[in-house]
Amino acid sequence: MSWSSSGSGPDLTGARARRGANLPRIGDFNQAVVLDALRRARHGLSRADLSEHTGLSAQSITNIVRRLAERGLVTEQAPALPHGRGRPAAPIRLDPAGRFAVGVHVDPTVTSVALVDLTAAVVASRRTVAASATSPERLTTAVADAVAEVTAGVAAERVLGVGVATPGPVDTGAGVVVGAPLLPGWERVELRRLVREATGLPVVMHKDTAAAAVGELWHEPDPADFVFLYLGTGLGAGFVVNGELLPGRTDNAGEIGHLMVSPDGPRCHCGQVGCVGASSMPRTLVGEAVAAGVLEPSAHDAGDVEIDAAFTRLCVAAARNAPAREVLERSAARLARAAVTLCNALDVGAVVVGGPAWSRTEPVFLPILREVVAATTEARRVHEVAVRSSVLGDDAAVVGAACLVLEHSFSPSPATLLIR
Amino acid sequence: MSWSSSGSGPDLTGARARRGANLPRIGDFNQAVVLDALRRARHGLSRADLSEHTGLSAQSITNIVRRLAERGLVTEQAPALPHGRGRPAAPIRLDPAGRFAVGVHVDPTVTSVALVDLTAAVVASRRTVAASATSPERLTTAVADAVAEVTAGVAAERVLGVGVATPGPVDTGAGVVVGAPLLPGWERVELRRLVREATGLPVVMHKDTAAAAVGELWHEPDPADFVFLYLGTGLGAGFVVNGELLPGRTDNAGEIGHLMVSPDGPRCHCGQVGCVGASSMPRTLVGEAVAAGVLEPSAHDAGDVEIDAAFTRLCVAAARNAPAREVLERSAARLARAAVTLCNALDVGAVVVGGPAWSRTEPVFLPILREVVAATTEARRVHEVAVRSSVLGDDAAVVGAACLVLEHSFSPSPATLLIR
Repeated sequence: MSWSSSGSGPDLTGARARRGANLPRIGDFNQAVVLDALRRARHGLSRADLSEHTGLSAQSITNIVRRLAERGLVTEQAPALPHGRGRPAAPIRLDPAGRFAVGVHVDPTVTSVALVDLTAAVVASRRTVAASATSPERLTTAVADAVAEVTAGVAAERVLGVGVATPGPVDTGAGVVVGAPLLPGWERVELRRLVREATGLPVVMHKDTAAAAVGELWHEPDPADFVFLYLGTGLGAGFVVNGELLPGRTDNAGEIGHLMVSPDGPRCHCGQVGCVGASSMPRTLVGEAVAAGVLEPSAHDAGDVEIDAAFTRLCVAAARNAPAREVLERSAARLARAAVTLCNALDVGAVVVGGPAWSRTEPVFLPILREVVAATTEARRVHEVAVRSSVLGDDAAVVGAACLVLEHSFSPSPATLLIR
Repeated sequence: MSWSSSGSGPDLTGARARRGANLPRIGDFNQAVVLDALRRARHGLSRADLSEHTGLSAQSITNIVRRLAERGLVTEQAPALPHGRGRPAAPIRLDPAGRFAVGVHVDPTVTSVALVDLTAAVVASRRTVAASATSPERLTTAVADAVAEVTAGVAAERVLGVGVATPGPVDTGAGVVVGAPLLPGWERVELRRLVREATGLPVVMHKDTAAAAVGELWHEPDPADFVFLYLGTGLGAGFVVNGELLPGRTDNAGEIGHLMVSPDGPRCHCGQVGCVGASSMPRTLVGEAVAAGVLEPSAHDAGDVEIDAAFTRLCVAAARNAPAREVLERSAARLARAAVTLCNALDVGAVVVGGPAWSRTEPVFLPILREVVAATTEARRVHEVAVRSSVLGDDAAVVGAACLVLEHSFSPSPATLLIR
C-alpha cells in the first residue's frame, strides 16, 4: 500500500533524516519531497517551481513526476495554446482521485467515518454508534460496515488505509486504547487489530487530539506552529512545531486535562480541583447550568449522548440568556488560562480550536480566548499569538484521522506513524 | 568563525533539511554529521564506525576526516602495533584543544563565565557581578574582563565565540533581553551587541533555561527527550525532543512561571495566586521560612544576593529542622505538579532538574518529584518517566551557554541559533 517502491514504507525517522546524503532510500525520499510540495500548493506547480521548492535538479523532477504520473498520483495539465512567447509551464497537480484514505473517529458521543481523496477533501461520510454505549467488538463491526459504505464507489487498490482517532492515552506501539477515563470498560482494547481484521485494510492509530492537529496542518499549513485545543466529550491538545506534529515519546503528548486553571471548580476524577479538563467538559457545564436554573436537571445516569443534547440547549440559550452565557464565559476564561500556559511553554504562533463541542461554544469562547491570550501571553512583547477556529470545525478528528494515512504516505519524515 | 567552508555558516533550517538530496551545501552538512557523530562517541570512532553511524560511504568519510584533521578539529590515533591479524582500526576523536567556546550566564544573583573545549569540558571559569545589582553597560565590561581572563592561554583563532544565557523573555532576532521581571531596569537591552563589541567575538544568545537544556543534551544525550526544570532566582524550563532543543517560534519556549499548581500560595506579580514560579522562588521560600520562625527576618529591601544566602541557610536547616523541611517539601510538591503537567503535555522520557538553586534543594526535592511523577503522569501505564539531577548541576546555564556555540558549529540542523 505504500507509495515507496521498495514496498516496506518510508522509514525516515528523525535520526535517519539527519544522516548524510548517500542514503540507500534517497529515491523514495525525493518522491515524498515532491508529493509534499505538491500537496502544499493549491493550484499545482510547474516543473521549474518544483525544482525551486525542493532543491532537486530539473532532470530529477522530470523522472520523479513521470513515475508519479504512471502510478496515478499526479496529473500534468496539457499546456494551453501559446499566446505569448515560449511554451507556458504545465502545472503539475495531485490527482484527487489518485488515492483515498478513510478516517474513523471513535468518540464517547458518536463514531464518525469519512473518506477523503488525495487532497484531503471529504468525499463521503457516515455517523454510527457512540463508543461509550457499546463494546469494542460491536463498535468495530459498525465501523467496518460504515467503511464499506463510504468506499463502495472506489477501486480497492486506491484506498490507502484507515486512520483511527481515539481518546487517549494510547499505546500506539501495540495499537491499543489504554483506557480513557471517558470510555468505561475500554481497558487495553486492541483497536488497531480489530479494525484491521474487520476492514481488511492497513490501519494507523493516533489520539483524537493529535489527529485533529494533523488534519488542521494538512488543510491550513500556516502558521506551521500552533497549539490545537480539542473540545469534545473531554479536552485535549495537539501540538504542531515546524510543520510537524509533536507526538511525544509514545504518541501521548497533549494530555492537558489536569492542567490547573482555577483555585476552585468541580472535583476531577484525579482527586484535585481546578483541572481544566473537568471544568470544561460538557457534562460539568450542563451541571453548572442546572445549578443556575438554566436547564432542567438531567437524569442522574444520563449518558454522553443525552448530556451532549443538553449541552446544545445550554449553548443555544447562551445567545439570549445571561445566566447561561455566564456558565460558558466562566468556562472560556478557564480554557483561556490553559491556552496561555501552553503558549508560554511552547512559544507558538497560534492557538487553533476545534472538535465536536467547538462550533456550539465558539460565539462565546472565541472573543474571550483572543482577549486573554493577547493580554497575558509572556512573549506578547515579541510577537502576537493568533487565536482562530479550526478550518475543520467539529469534524477535526475524523478528517484528521484520514489525514494520518495521507501523512504517512506523503511525509518525508513520518517519524512515528507506522502502518502495520 | 564557522566550520563550514563557505564562510556564511550553516543554514539548514527545518524546511531546508527536508529538501531533496542535491542541496548545494551538502558537503558542509556531511562534515557536520561526522562531527556530530564524533562528539556523541566518548571514546572515538573508527572510519568503519563513522560510515555505519552516518550512512556516508567509506570514501566520503576518508575525505571528510582528512579535511577536519587539517583544520585541527579531529585527531587520528596512530594504530597500535598489530598483535593479531590485520591492521587495527584507528580511532578518530575530536581534538579537545581544537576549538574553544565561551559561556556567559547573566543572572540576578551572579554572572558566571566559563571556557569549554571542543568536548564541552570546562577549562577555566570566573564569577563576577550580579546582574540585578548593576547596569547592562557595567556588566558588559565585567564580562569582557572575565572573558579575557579565561581565554588568556588560548590562541585567538581557536575561540569560536561567546554564548550568552539570560533570563527570558528574549528577542533573539534582535539580540535583546526584553525585560525579565527579575532584572529591574533591564528593558530591551541589546546585550548581544554589547557583548560582541566588548569582546570582539561572535555572540549567540539564548534564554538561561534553553541553554541549560542544550548543555545537558551535550553532556548526556540519553534520553533524547526531556523536560529540563531550571531552578534559579526564578523558575523556567527547557524542552528537548528528538535530541534537539524545542526553542519555540521566537526562542521563548519554556516560560512556565505562571503555570498554576496550587489553589493558594503567594500572590504573583501577574496578579494571580498559585503560579509555580512565584511559589518556587528562593525569595518566596525564605519569606515562608521567616513566617515559620525558621529564619530571622531579612531586611525589607534585601537584594538577590542576600536572599540567596538566606535560602542557603534554609536548605541547610532543612536537614535537621522539621519546619524548615516542610517549607521545602511544600514547594517540592508544587514543582512536582508542574513537572507532571509538562510531562502530560509533552510525553517525554525524563525530567532533568538543575540550575543555581538545585544542589541545595535536591535532597528534599528529588524524592518528592520522583514519587509524584511516577504516581500521576498520564502515560504511566505506557512508559516510565525518569526524574534525575542535571549532570551540570548548578552550572547548567553557563556551561550550556558555551554549548550553544558548539551546537551552532556542530549541529547538522541548528535551526534557530545564528551567530552574527
